[in-house]
Amino acid sequence: MMSNSTILNKSEGIPLYIQIRRTLREEINGQMLVPGQKLPSEDELAARFGVSRMTVRQGIADLIDEGLLYRRHGVGTFVALPHLERDHTRLTSFLESARQEGLEVAVHVLAAEVLPAKRKVALELKLEEGELVIRVKTLRFISGVPVTVHDAYIPYRQFPQLLQDDLQNRHLWDIYESYGFRVKRAVQRLEAREADEECAALLEVEEGFPILYKERTVYLDNGTPVEFTYCYNRGDRYRLTVVLNR
Amino acid sequence: MMSNSTILNKSEGIPLYIQIRRTLREEINGQMLVPGQKLPSEDELAARFGVSRMTVRQGIADLIDEGLLYRRHGVGTFVALPHLERDHTRLTSFLESARQEGLEVAVHVLAAEVLPAKRKVALELKLEEGELVIRVKTLRFISGVPVTVHDAYIPYRQFPQLLQDDLQNRHLWDIYESYGFRVKRAVQRLEAREADEECAALLEVEEGFPILYKERTVYLDNGTPVEFTYCYNRGDRYRLTVVLNR
Repeated sequence: MMSNSTILNKSEGIPLYIQIRRTLREEINGQMLVPGQKLPSEDELAARFGVSRMTVRQGIADLIDEGLLYRRHGVGTFVALPHLERDHTRLTSFLESARQEGLEVAVHVLAAEVLPAKRKVALELKLEEGELVIRVKTLRFISGVPVTVHDAYIPYRQFPQLLQDDLQNRHLWDIYESYGFRVKRAVQRLEAREADEECAALLEVEEGFPILYKERTVYLDNGTPVEFTYCYNRGDRYRLTVVLNR
Repeated sequence: MMSNSTILNKSEGIPLYIQIRRTLREEINGQMLVPGQKLPSEDELAARFGVSRMTVRQGIADLIDEGLLYRRHGVGTFVALPHLERDHTRLTSFLESARQEGLEVAVHVLAAEVLPAKRKVALELKLEEGELVIRVKTLRFISGVPVTVHDAYIPYRQFPQLLQDDLQNRHLWDIYESYGFRVKRAVQRLEAREADEECAALLEVEEGFPILYKERTVYLDNGTPVEFTYCYNRGDRYRLTVVLNR
């Protein structure tokens, strides 16, 4: 709930858009505006503050830039939700990195099955098309919000017992390592995409919503590819940090 | 231009969706369908092949999965354009990595100015808000297509002569190094976002188009932040590869 009584000081030397920015920032910090909440329209804010729409827009632009607000095309401006800050400085699993931050994580298994590898999966896992692979598809929640769809393919002949494992609570990498293998390296390809129908439904966003799409091939220390995964991460909740040295 | 005479073999053992997949793949490889071209609608393809829409969809899904086609929400299915494969295994500049692949690159300078640092830029560069920074905003083309908007901020007091340099042809990092500094490390944060109005116009896409958004802080070997950059990459043309070791 926003106060309607905010009066800007028009005689003071501080530009009006900075006063608007300050007011909105205080309302976010004070939780009068809460994460996910939609801001009133530019016209409504202009009326409230007694300034032009352009001035409102200038004040808002800085808060978008700082990541306190975000704009959805054709929908409106919202108070930003906290992002899952995924640190890719070193190779850690989803569960490891989220738990390190003290976040509540949950994994729902959507599919656990054996099927013939399609062309792309086969190529990535160095199998023939049609060879059997295990598919483990999960939906991952952070603090109760669905953030990632994770669709992993593993060579069946290497882990024929995998589906009998506790896929909900154990990480795939732990399972590989319990078989005496060592995960060594992951090659990840990142793109921005739109949510398709299925992905949108799972991640509770509308179709077309921005998705940080990731393909990942995981290798053992002997160089064998052991997992190929499609990852669909909600654009408004997932941020990935990479540190590079020259 | 697509041939209209393709006849599927319904008596043969090969499933119809695989025959459709094969036909479309051949037309893409044979350049009867060219990058960026919109595919006929599912209804049109169903009529052409004499199959159900569901069968057409199944055939197309595999080609999307392989990256030969891509779907735009509410717009249609298109033949994929080649992605700029940006390898982030080590820290290389945009120009370095594109040229290594033999691509034609061009840089247009959109803004080159000195201005007071806003809050976020100041924070990243360890300056006070309002201290002077140099802004170099460029639009980068690969093979004539605008792929990236690059909006860089550099502490003015460190490089007061920077704007007199050849910003169109020299890379910022080369300029820093010509002053005797050494670029050592970059911290990058990646998100999927929607194109706003300005970004859409520059990258020649519609508003709301998926953007691989990147914030980057570049550090010298003495630990000083020397550049903070906002990067907006066209989702359909930019793919980033990261290799991680456990």
